[in-house]
Amino acid sequence: MDKNSIIYGKNTIFETLLSDKRQINKIFISKSVNTDGKIQEIIDLARIKGIVFQFVPKEKLAKYSEFPHQGIIAQVSPVKYTNFEEFLTTGSEHKKLIILDGVEDPHNVGSIIRTAVCAGYDGIIIPSRRNAQINATVEKSSAGAVNHIAIIQVNSLSNTIEKLKKHNYWIIATDAKGKDNYFDIDYCNMSFALIMGGEETGVSKNNLNKSDFIVKIPMLRNFNSLNVSNAASVIIYESVRQWLQSSNDSV
Amino acid sequence: MDKNSIIYGKNTIFETLLSDKRQINKIFISKSVNTDGKIQEIIDLARIKGIVFQFVPKEKLAKYSEFPHQGIIAQVSPVKYTNFEEFLTTGSEHKKLIILDGVEDPHNVGSIIRTAVCAGYDGIIIPSRRNAQINATVEKSSAGAVNHIAIIQVNSLSNTIEKLKKHNYWIIATDAKGKDNYFDIDYCNMSFALIMGGEETGVSKNNLNKSDFIVKIPMLRNFNSLNVSNAASVIIYESVRQWLQSSNDSV
Repeated sequence: MDKNSIIYGKNTIFETLLSDKRQINKIFISKSVNTDGKIQEIIDLARIKGIVFQFVPKEKLAKYSEFPHQGIIAQVSPVKYTNFEEFLTTGSEHKKLIILDGVEDPHNVGSIIRTAVCAGYDGIIIPSRRNAQINATVEKSSAGAVNHIAIIQVNSLSNTIEKLKKHNYWIIATDAKGKDNYFDIDYCNMSFALIMGGEETGVSKNNLNKSDFIVKIPMLRNFNSLNVSNAASVIIYESVRQWLQSSNDSV
Repeated sequence: MDKNSIIYGKNTIFETLLSDKRQINKIFISKSVNTDGKIQEIIDLARIKGIVFQFVPKEKLAKYSEFPHQGIIAQVSPVKYTNFEEFLTTGSEHKKLIILDGVEDPHNVGSIIRTAVCAGYDGIIIPSRRNAQINATVEKSSAGAVNHIAIIQVNSLSNTIEKLKKHNYWIIATDAKGKDNYFDIDYCNMSFALIMGGEETGVSKNNLNKSDFIVKIPMLRNFNSLNVSNAASVIIYESVRQWLQSSNDSV
């Protein structure tokens, strides 16, 4: 099996099965794995959906030892990207996007996608260069969330941001030198895109210049910064808090 | 070198040097690494502090290839734990703690410590069993933050929680079935401990029963949950937001 066409781990495979978004060719389960709980749910779901699964000696999965696969691997079709133009012109009135600008660690990309899904965001924009692409590690770190949100791959973030602005999106970049605290922005009743920068480099200067707001996360100790996936979850859930609390206030 | 007595990665070693909390025996820098930027800052700081560093052929670091060490490794004394009784009776009036209850992934433990440091929390309580302990991976994921906060190792979480309650701490546990949203709790003007549960198991029933509040993070899509380090950062920074906004209101 091509390592680019696999997914691994119990939750990832379970969520991918549930989503019906991918063609799953075959599921391989190690004979030495305990088939209680989640593995049994996967087997039941595969039976219902008519997907082939096979118990294999654990040696057969040894070549995937670089992945913490928990004794289960599936061969799948690639993740489906959403067309950007189509995304812009369909769906709800107020859309919420994450833009990744140079996030290199696939674990971070995966957790950001997972958080965005939990928070009801509409899409993730990933540049085709200088950013981790969707791979087996991203899918695992997202716990299968890549199948529950629009993933949009673009060649130029600069052009993408211009286009978003023409479609009345507010652009919010994050930077340690930002003027406002992230919680001083009103995230309600608008479409917006939140730009998260790379682990070492942050949001690029060019993209900072194009942004409507540059927000920071306050540091209460003299210490560098949050991990980028944690920073993303802090801001994403501040927007959720505002939506839920403002809708309560208006009742 | 014993793999339990090393730390690795540029930011981790830089922050550890800065903190003055650990005895650093020697720093090994791969000859093939680019000594611009952070590596140069490490060399300068090591010179000032009289710490030995040595350029070595990259083969010498090959046995640490399991770690993404970025060409730099240091041999250090173990992390210093803080005595629980001492922690309880010293320091500021209102203290904020994180309790880890079965968090197994060292990357998650490291990022939670990093977030707690950024947010000005006072300590992290780690049970000596059924939880990842401080190791090289935790230190790297914390970006050196383990040296900037009290790390308290305890044998029994149950006894620890009882003791915290006697010292007027509020105990806040997180659980998907929690009654309140995490932002409906008032985190101001009190000492509290926030319990984060393991990736698969959550906070144990016994500890949930002992808690004053059980809070949830609302899910806006039908999807399982956040990664535990992201969940921690969402709640930790909600407390920061409340402190900063309430102190602004009272000016």
